[in-house]
Amino acid sequence: MSAVIILGIDPGTAITGYGIVVYEGNHYHVVSYGVLNSSKTEAPASRLNKIYEGINSLIDTHRPDAMAIEELFFNKNAKTVIQVGQARGVALLAAQRRHLSIFEYTPLQVKQAVVGYGRAEKQQVQFMVKAILNLQEIPRPDDAADALAIAICHGHFASSGYYTRIKEM
Amino acid sequence: MSAVIILGIDPGTAITGYGIVVYEGNHYHVVSYGVLNSSKTEAPASRLNKIYEGINSLIDTHRPDAMAIEELFFNKNAKTVIQVGQARGVALLAAQRRHLSIFEYTPLQVKQAVVGYGRAEKQQVQFMVKAILNLQEIPRPDDAADALAIAICHGHFASSGYYTRIKEM
Repeated sequence: MSAVIILGIDPGTAITGYGIVVYEGNHYHVVSYGVLNSSKTEAPASRLNKIYEGINSLIDTHRPDAMAIEELFFNKNAKTVIQVGQARGVALLAAQRRHLSIFEYTPLQVKQAVVGYGRAEKQQVQFMVKAILNLQEIPRPDDAADALAIAICHGHFASSGYYTRIKEM
Repeated sequence: MSAVIILGIDPGTAITGYGIVVYEGNHYHVVSYGVLNSSKTEAPASRLNKIYEGINSLIDTHRPDAMAIEELFFNKNAKTVIQVGQARGVALLAAQRRHLSIFEYTPLQVKQAVVGYGRAEKQQVQFMVKAILNLQEIPRPDDAADALAIAICHGHFASSGYYTRIKEM
């Protein structure tokens, strides 16, 4: 596999984490990571639009080949699931309209790929994200670290020839 | 209140119902109604894009002033909630980016507005939608009838000076 630029996204209404990594020759390096923020005082549709425009801007700046996104947990409360679902829908739309390939992974797959153990703790995942990307510190906030983890996960599964492809343009 | 063009939306991944009504001088008339369809064989992001483009096209054609959309039920299974949440996020985004005002109503408010009774049955709602809009038949499919009902609901609450405004541009 030649170099691939991967955009990892951890969607949420208030905070959407992102992480952009390049995967090449079995090595990763980090291009950018952070969060898209919006204020609680903003209307829901305005917040969704910020996520949409923020992801568009990331795509236009960094030209990723693929977006990796986590499957939604079902064990949160319904209100949260709806709000995350709305943010996730907008993230998928942004990637689709910019012609990225879209890949979806379960939390188990992310832990397996990053730590080598599907039941790893959050701290172990964050420690490995730091190690794999040669970072000085664990990326903050958690949403950014989670987004980097899922980007790494995609590199791992894509290079191994096994991945869950939910969308190929 | 002068004439207002209302786009009612009933979001879903497979079928998104829409209904466009004009409310003027305490009367409604229907402009258009129907559904945006997508195939199960399509990838989720592609289906979301169809909803987004379909709603954009409705807005560009009919120039509604407002979008009315139902609050999501919490009593469905989590998988459905996520998928409807994704579709709903994309619908809100389309309205937001075309500068529509966005209004959200509970199922109770829709029944109250259309039938005058918050615990009305689905059939009563559909019968009243037909009557209020002077239609020859009950609109089909149900998703289109639901979308018309929520558009009527917005006319009702907007004219009464009472409404739940979740978004004003």
